[in-house]
Amino acid sequence: MKIDDLIKETSEWLKGTGPDSDIVISSRIRLARNIGGLHFVDWSDDETKQKVVDVTKRAILASNYMKDALYVEMDKIPVVDRQFLMERHLISREHAIDPEFKTTFVGDKEIISIMVNEEDHLRLQVIESGFLLDEAWHIMEGLEKDLEQRLNFAFSDEWGYLTACPTNAGSGLRASAMVHLPAIVITRQVDGLIHAISKLGLTVRGFFGEGTEATGNFFQISNQVTLGRREEDVIDSLKRVIRQVIAQEKTARAFLKDKRKDIIEDRISRARATLEAAHIITSKEAIGLFSLVRLGIDLGLIKNIDTKKLNELFVFIQPAHLQKLEGKKLSTVERDIKRTELIRNKLKIS
Amino acid sequence: MKIDDLIKETSEWLKGTGPDSDIVISSRIRLARNIGGLHFVDWSDDETKQKVVDVTKRAILASNYMKDALYVEMDKIPVVDRQFLMERHLISREHAIDPEFKTTFVGDKEIISIMVNEEDHLRLQVIESGFLLDEAWHIMEGLEKDLEQRLNFAFSDEWGYLTACPTNAGSGLRASAMVHLPAIVITRQVDGLIHAISKLGLTVRGFFGEGTEATGNFFQISNQVTLGRREEDVIDSLKRVIRQVIAQEKTARAFLKDKRKDIIEDRISRARATLEAAHIITSKEAIGLFSLVRLGIDLGLIKNIDTKKLNELFVFIQPAHLQKLEGKKLSTVERDIKRTELIRNKLKIS
Repeated sequence: MKIDDLIKETSEWLKGTGPDSDIVISSRIRLARNIGGLHFVDWSDDETKQKVVDVTKRAILASNYMKDALYVEMDKIPVVDRQFLMERHLISREHAIDPEFKTTFVGDKEIISIMVNEEDHLRLQVIESGFLLDEAWHIMEGLEKDLEQRLNFAFSDEWGYLTACPTNAGSGLRASAMVHLPAIVITRQVDGLIHAISKLGLTVRGFFGEGTEATGNFFQISNQVTLGRREEDVIDSLKRVIRQVIAQEKTARAFLKDKRKDIIEDRISRARATLEAAHIITSKEAIGLFSLVRLGIDLGLIKNIDTKKLNELFVFIQPAHLQKLEGKKLSTVERDIKRTELIRNKLKIS
Repeated sequence: MKIDDLIKETSEWLKGTGPDSDIVISSRIRLARNIGGLHFVDWSDDETKQKVVDVTKRAILASNYMKDALYVEMDKIPVVDRQFLMERHLISREHAIDPEFKTTFVGDKEIISIMVNEEDHLRLQVIESGFLLDEAWHIMEGLEKDLEQRLNFAFSDEWGYLTACPTNAGSGLRASAMVHLPAIVITRQVDGLIHAISKLGLTVRGFFGEGTEATGNFFQISNQVTLGRREEDVIDSLKRVIRQVIAQEKTARAFLKDKRKDIIEDRISRARATLEAAHIITSKEAIGLFSLVRLGIDLGLIKNIDTKKLNELFVFIQPAHLQKLEGKKLSTVERDIKRTELIRNKLKIS
């Protein structure tokens, strides 16, 4: 598989399928692992880093889970491709910015991806579309067991799996769900919700993960601490919170549809019209408008837009995607113009 | 003629015809006159006010200029009709708010209108579409001469025609033009322009005259002082300024079309789409969007909208017009909804 093959398909997590996919866009499980007897990445010399690259490559490509996986040495690919992988949520911003001795593996349908020499030697990720945390965890368990047969993971009886950052120690697990909460935002309940979630030891972040604002009413909710907790408990407590969030969003949507129909129809109709009419648009504005159009589809107010195509747009309007689609470098202004062409094309009344 | 007949037609000044009508919406001449031997309105008792009403009614309806004119006693018509006359720029806000002993005359095509017992006994107004200050003045001269044969206007050799407010004394003339300056606003030259115009002894006001903000890039430019100046000189100096403003707006439009095409197409296209898509809209937002659509028509970027229908909308979306069209009282929210139906209807691709 090559990077350029990825753009032909939509990542599995963007397909808009799976349970509760009108609110839960995707479910993600991440595990951090390190190779025993080798320094953590930040303390490693080049030789050790290269050793990690070599050892993990053999082990991962030998795994049944990663047959025919895309394998990328980050310093061998152009900047636009690194950004492209980031836009697809396959790698982190850090992994894209400083590519030396870093590699990436992407499995079938982009459900599994693995970063080598990011903060830890290995960062394993499983993303599924919709509210499927158990299934994602099930895949992750299998993958991790499989790799553990081929790699010696750093483990202490006292601390569990060892990780570069103590907050990840123990299971090294981060579970998260990306949720779309337009009605909670419009009815101004979102600050209260974020506050309540934080009190439960969970974190709420924006569309692009750590350190990013919530864009277009999309939020990533994830567990904070893993030390001393069983994986299943971490996932269960996240699931309970997500179920409450789903219920709250549904109530808010029903309220908007029943009691604020004119206002919500107005907003949705304007959003759609603006997407169709704009000649220049930033990613940020576009995502905000997509959010309203998606709400319109979910409320049954918009019928002739294909949800799958709309979902694709979230990723395809990003800078690197636009440039790969065009096959050349584009300035910011050129992207802001090209973006509107792509949007008009995808949202064409079907 | 009845008030309800007016709504069937568009006021002459809104027809979008006349010279330079892409920038100069309308040209207006106003004269203030008072009846000799009677106190000014503010110092009058009811008997005197009634006398002014009676005397002027006889004189005006006898004039050839005002044959078949609409004659209205302001305290005999409902609030919505008073507001309706104001929205058509036939009377002032003051004339609508306090209707006692006030009357209004409206001539053919609404070119001439006369307020009795507003600030002065008589306020004569002539409005024409486009840049036609000379023609408007020509009509006004004829009307005034005609009325002077039947009415004894208060006049002093020292001061000229006497008026309640000294700034109107002398000729009692106010000449103004309503100009549409979207390109000057978008290119951020408007503050400088207003400052320059003020230094020339002229005044710049919003769409609804005295004390109103500029709405949707429409500005009324008028002379300030009349004492000691010949009518023709007042009009000439206003004409000179308007010609400069037209030139500046044309330069700014050419700049936008040549150098900022993407940005201006984006704004205009979004404005039109929003007008077509909105389910709720305020007058103020609508007028701002009409302004951009009008610019789009003037720049040749929008071809299938009828300028006359667009011009009508400026007045027809106002609260009293909407309520008269619907034939009933509407709440603010109901108006904001009805307004969008009217807009969609009028802007339907022809």
